[in-house]
Amino acid sequence: MDPLDGKTVAIVGLGLMGGSLALALRSHPIALVGIETDSATRELALEYGLVDMVTANLAEGVAGADLVVLAAPVGVIVSTLATLPSACPTGCAVLDLGSTKQAIVAAMNKLPPSFKALGGHPMCGKETAGLRAADAGLYQGQTFILSRTTRSDSVMENLAVSFVAAIGARPLWLEPGEHDRLVALTSHLPYFVAVGLIAKATTAAQANKHLWRLSASGFRDTTRLAGSDPLMLRDITATNRVEILSALRDYAGVLEEIIKLLEQGDDELLLDWLIARQREHDRYRQEQQRSSAGTVARWPDRAE
Amino acid sequence: MDPLDGKTVAIVGLGLMGGSLALALRSHPIALVGIETDSATRELALEYGLVDMVTANLAEGVAGADLVVLAAPVGVIVSTLATLPSACPTGCAVLDLGSTKQAIVAAMNKLPPSFKALGGHPMCGKETAGLRAADAGLYQGQTFILSRTTRSDSVMENLAVSFVAAIGARPLWLEPGEHDRLVALTSHLPYFVAVGLIAKATTAAQANKHLWRLSASGFRDTTRLAGSDPLMLRDITATNRVEILSALRDYAGVLEEIIKLLEQGDDELLLDWLIARQREHDRYRQEQQRSSAGTVARWPDRAE
Repeated sequence: MDPLDGKTVAIVGLGLMGGSLALALRSHPIALVGIETDSATRELALEYGLVDMVTANLAEGVAGADLVVLAAPVGVIVSTLATLPSACPTGCAVLDLGSTKQAIVAAMNKLPPSFKALGGHPMCGKETAGLRAADAGLYQGQTFILSRTTRSDSVMENLAVSFVAAIGARPLWLEPGEHDRLVALTSHLPYFVAVGLIAKATTAAQANKHLWRLSASGFRDTTRLAGSDPLMLRDITATNRVEILSALRDYAGVLEEIIKLLEQGDDELLLDWLIARQREHDRYRQEQQRSSAGTVARWPDRAE
Repeated sequence: MDPLDGKTVAIVGLGLMGGSLALALRSHPIALVGIETDSATRELALEYGLVDMVTANLAEGVAGADLVVLAAPVGVIVSTLATLPSACPTGCAVLDLGSTKQAIVAAMNKLPPSFKALGGHPMCGKETAGLRAADAGLYQGQTFILSRTTRSDSVMENLAVSFVAAIGARPLWLEPGEHDRLVALTSHLPYFVAVGLIAKATTAAQANKHLWRLSASGFRDTTRLAGSDPLMLRDITATNRVEILSALRDYAGVLEEIIKLLEQGDDELLLDWLIARQREHDRYRQEQQRSSAGTVARWPDRAE
């Protein structure tokens, strides 16, 4: 029997990520509890039939939960972990969805021994926040990072793997430090790159009224991440500053190389360099498609 | 009567852009001729019924054409303009779709007085090149830049405006220099930004096998332009080097500001800055949606 069947899962935070979790879990034999401070979101969750019970009170929400999932910005996750021992004196099993892992795993390590805890991070999202943007398929086929803590054991690990499979995602075990170093490159750097483009283009648009009419789908996609929740990014930066700065400095060095290449004025040398980059882009897309193609066979969506 | 009705339009280059043009024009009372050096593409164009006649020979293709549209990378457009006087000794009307305008308008200015010519640049595209990626809706609602040359007159301008309306696009008259300066920011800079991210991430992926599994939709969209045709970008760079270098250096300065902001470690200051950038992103998206919403009323698609 699946370790998740018949269990009660409490989701702390019914925004895009928590709401999408609830939608993905809805067809499983699981009781769902939502814990959400915003009253309009609580009403919406009940209206959608997203959860069996919803409350603003952490202690009330986690009482009787077999698994508590923290779906909030990193800062809220860390402060929730600090209040959990008083909200749930008997202990419980905790998993999170936070964007960085070192600060959260450190907070989990401080939980009393009656708690079981694992760090988690699904590699998906949208630039639109909030429950109305929730999507049952958000996690489908996506990588779900899991990080061990001093508060995890094999029972907790089996529960987490079952949870990841239930939402159609694919688990990948990583050390928190390795996770934070890699996502600084694949997620945080692209965000700051997009934000920088928006800052530069806005300045130019103030000087020339035609600028936005000359921006097409390329500009739109390259800057999409600049619409992300600033609070989430503030917390990410606060807990992954060293790695983000390192990625930004390395990237500034790559831009400097590109500037030098253009200054040289040798267009055939530039062409060779651009062809090599296009091939790298092709290989990256192939890697992506290969790992997505493997999803269905390995992690069938039990909801269907 | 529409100045385009009953006319013959010759399209030089049946790739993504030229093929999409043919698809968009197919339902209009216009004869279409394709001029294409690749034999497989010529066969495909006939198979699709995309054009009424297809040839590899420029002189044969432009004979009898009321409008010749050059749909190729900038370098090919410039060299085609150089051979047009011998291919079409009696002169013809020429419009192009090239990504930069100064070099092309300069070449158009050198055409004999029997020629009429306007520079053009539709603000749309895809990172996938070739006729198989062609799309009848590619130009729908998009801005189509038009640049006057010393070889244009009101008859030519009316013909070009009618052509732009026929494919569902919206004309915007701009000086070639202003065009090249603005697209350096909205199109060429985002390309090099994406290429830089792919270069950096590929190096990291060679050192860590998990890296690509930690890249999600944000990375995918931010780097999409790195899949663009390197030949097209080589030609763009060769004809817009000064503006691209200026945009890259300005952008490197913005990244330097971001690095300093992160080094300061004042996360509330960072939050304020990120909120301001998110608002700028919102305003840009609103501008985009407003200009798209105006499309239907001003330029009804006559194909429907």
